Amino acid sequence: MPYFLNFNFMITIISGTNRPNSNSIRVANYYQALLKERGMESQILDLAKIPEKFIFTALYDNLGKDPEFNKFVDMIKGADKYVFIVPEYNGSFPGVLKAFIDGLDYTASFKDKKCTLVGIATGQMAGTLALSHLTDILNYLGMHVHALKPRLPCVQNLLTAGKINDPVLEKLLQSQAESFIKF
Amino acid sequence: MPYFLNFNFMITIISGTNRPNSNSIRVANYYQALLKERGMESQILDLAKIPEKFIFTALYDNLGKDPEFNKFVDMIKGADKYVFIVPEYNGSFPGVLKAFIDGLDYTASFKDKKCTLVGIATGQMAGTLALSHLTDILNYLGMHVHALKPRLPCVQNLLTAGKINDPVLEKLLQSQAESFIKF
Amino acid sequence: MPYFLNFNFMITIISGTNRPNSNSIRVANYYQALLKERGMESQILDLAKIPEKFIFTALYDNLGKDPEFNKFVDMIKGADKYVFIVPEYNGSFPGVLKAFIDGLDYTASFKDKKCTLVGIATGQMAGTLALSHLTDILNYLGMHVHALKPRLPCVQNLLTAGKINDPVLEKLLQSQAESFIKF
Amino acid sequence: MPYFLNFNFMITIISGTNRPNSNSIRVANYYQALLKERGMESQILDLAKIPEKFIFTALYDNLGKDPEFNKFVDMIKGADKYVFIVPEYNGSFPGVLKAFIDGLDYTASFKDKKCTLVGIATGQMAGTLALSHLTDILNYLGMHVHALKPRLPCVQNLLTAGKINDPVLEKLLQSQAESFIKF
Repeated sequence: MPYFLNFNFMITIISGTNRPNSNSIRVANYYQALLKERGMESQILDLAKIPEKFIFTALYDNLGKDPEFNKFVDMIKGADKYVFIVPEYNGSFPGVLKAFIDGLDYTASFKDKKCTLVGIATGQMAGTLALSHLTDILNYLGMHVHALKPRLPCVQNLLTAGKINDPVLEKLLQSQAESFIKF
Repeated sequence: MPYFLNFNFMITIISGTNRPNSNSIRVANYYQALLKERGMESQILDLAKIPEKFIFTALYDNLGKDPEFNKFVDMIKGADKYVFIVPEYNGSFPGVLKAFIDGLDYTASFKDKKCTLVGIATGQMAGTLALSHLTDILNYLGMHVHALKPRLPCVQNLLTAGKINDPVLEKLLQSQAESFIKF
Repeated sequence: MPYFLNFNFMITIISGTNRPNSNSIRVANYYQALLKERGMESQILDLAKIPEKFIFTALYDNLGKDPEFNKFVDMIKGADKYVFIVPEYNGSFPGVLKAFIDGLDYTASFKDKKCTLVGIATGQMAGTLALSHLTDILNYLGMHVHALKPRLPCVQNLLTAGKINDPVLEKLLQSQAESFIKF
Repeated sequence: MPYFLNFNFMITIISGTNRPNSNSIRVANYYQALLKERGMESQILDLAKIPEKFIFTALYDNLGKDPEFNKFVDMIKGADKYVFIVPEYNGSFPGVLKAFIDGLDYTASFKDKKCTLVGIATGQMAGTLALSHLTDILNYLGMHVHALKPRLPCVQNLLTAGKINDPVLEKLLQSQAESFIKF
């Protein structure tokens, strides 16, 4: 996972699951291109690469003590803005994403920063509650959440060669990216 | 960031209940002074003055047809930013506030605008769910919600001669107002 | 609105909007037939018939003082179980429904009783947040909410001669009704 | 209501964090005694004892494949009722609890079963949103959630020799337990 921060990345895109080869990471890559086309560099934080035992080695009394986990923490601390790609699991977002947030330093991470959310699902009803729950949490941590929260149903069929193949959803994501850059 | 608003108010403060002589209107007046001290003019939309039958005369097929109600609508349309003073009633915010929102023109009201919320309650547990529900709705309508959402418990004892008498909460509201002006 | 309570009705069905000729009342009538076929009598509380000024005449210091409104209160107090037909307005349920709840006696209404919810919408994405918000409120008031909360998208096309014309949704509502009777 | 439980536990109490020596496990033990005094056997599922890598070894394509994790799954499958002891972390419940739920078999776990929730926090404002989010998820999974959801603020000071030392909260938990047994 080499990443080079010549300039500090302003935006970190969080692929919100540790499921291997997830739709989330595919959408994260798409979103990175979307931002790049608009002149914004970003880095991707892929929860699939997180230390396997982090829920024991990096939380609670071990907060900040796992050097491998700290690399992920730095990808949060070094950014000002965040894009969360959020799959729906069991009526909310993945537990691993919340566990990751539970491993961050409360005061130094999200306070007074800004983010935007993209909900994805393999079914028709994509993640309204997932985005609502995550908004509650991020607001609690002091981060402003962009109002426009696109939801991509049947996401497994939406990407062709790294591009969104539904013109309405593509336009929606472009609008979101442009509005978020100015947010 | 000096603003000069001869006529058009930039900020509308919504006192979120139609209860007569409410704590909400008292907090709304306090918040108006808070903004004025920081150079920002605002106007107060007091739901206690709303037409008594508006849930029948101004909603659904009558949207936009009640001239008295339209004066309130104009206080929304003419602003760019909003402060919601939100009492907790029955585990959420007052029904009359949602009914008021149901009487607004969806596309011309809150989209791409910004707001901040203040929760108030007469008991110890002030309005977490009320603010969460309202955030969901305002985000749905396309409005960005400021992350800092102070909650004022035992609000009936908090105001003396129009000032918040608890230094911690006073400072919190001042921080919110200053951050919101720049939001 | 004649209703005769020879025996007390056990179930009150609440049509959750005051919009005239709403889809909610049509679904409420359907649900009443569904319950009757399973041996359960019920009465319908139609918010379209509520006193026009009740948000001023029946709330706060006027709680319990509007005799017309009290007839609706009695339809709540006299029941043990409730079916809420809940349209989605602006990302949640109608303000008038919450205002109605704000006019009820907190302790004598819903505590230790049971209810079930049906979400309806004229669009594709029917009311997840509406049902979540309402569940929060009803739980706060001490009422148990049945877990199965069917949502009916494009509801305006779903009813033919008072029957649900989509076999999957019809079966879902039948299951809900049967499970709710035993709840 | 006599129950005979030679082997199968009817109630599983879930201590909702993997934090070592947590307040959650202390409250779980207290709740077990509370149920036992009322004639109900229960077992405690302690998330602190869960396999350290389960978010990689037991989720997604590995669902059901980790024999150590499956012992915890069996404690869910074998029960009909659940008590969740839910600490507040970062404005919601612990990520590890959701990750655990993400490792359960959707259809065989919670559907048509019943549960009750206890919120705990070390601060004054105990976990309203945590319980709301968890209710959304458990309802989504088809489980009925008891309406009474006590919240224990400053929980670290509440237990003396395994007993709740606040008479009001003790009575509240006793009421909850008794109501839940009949739920």
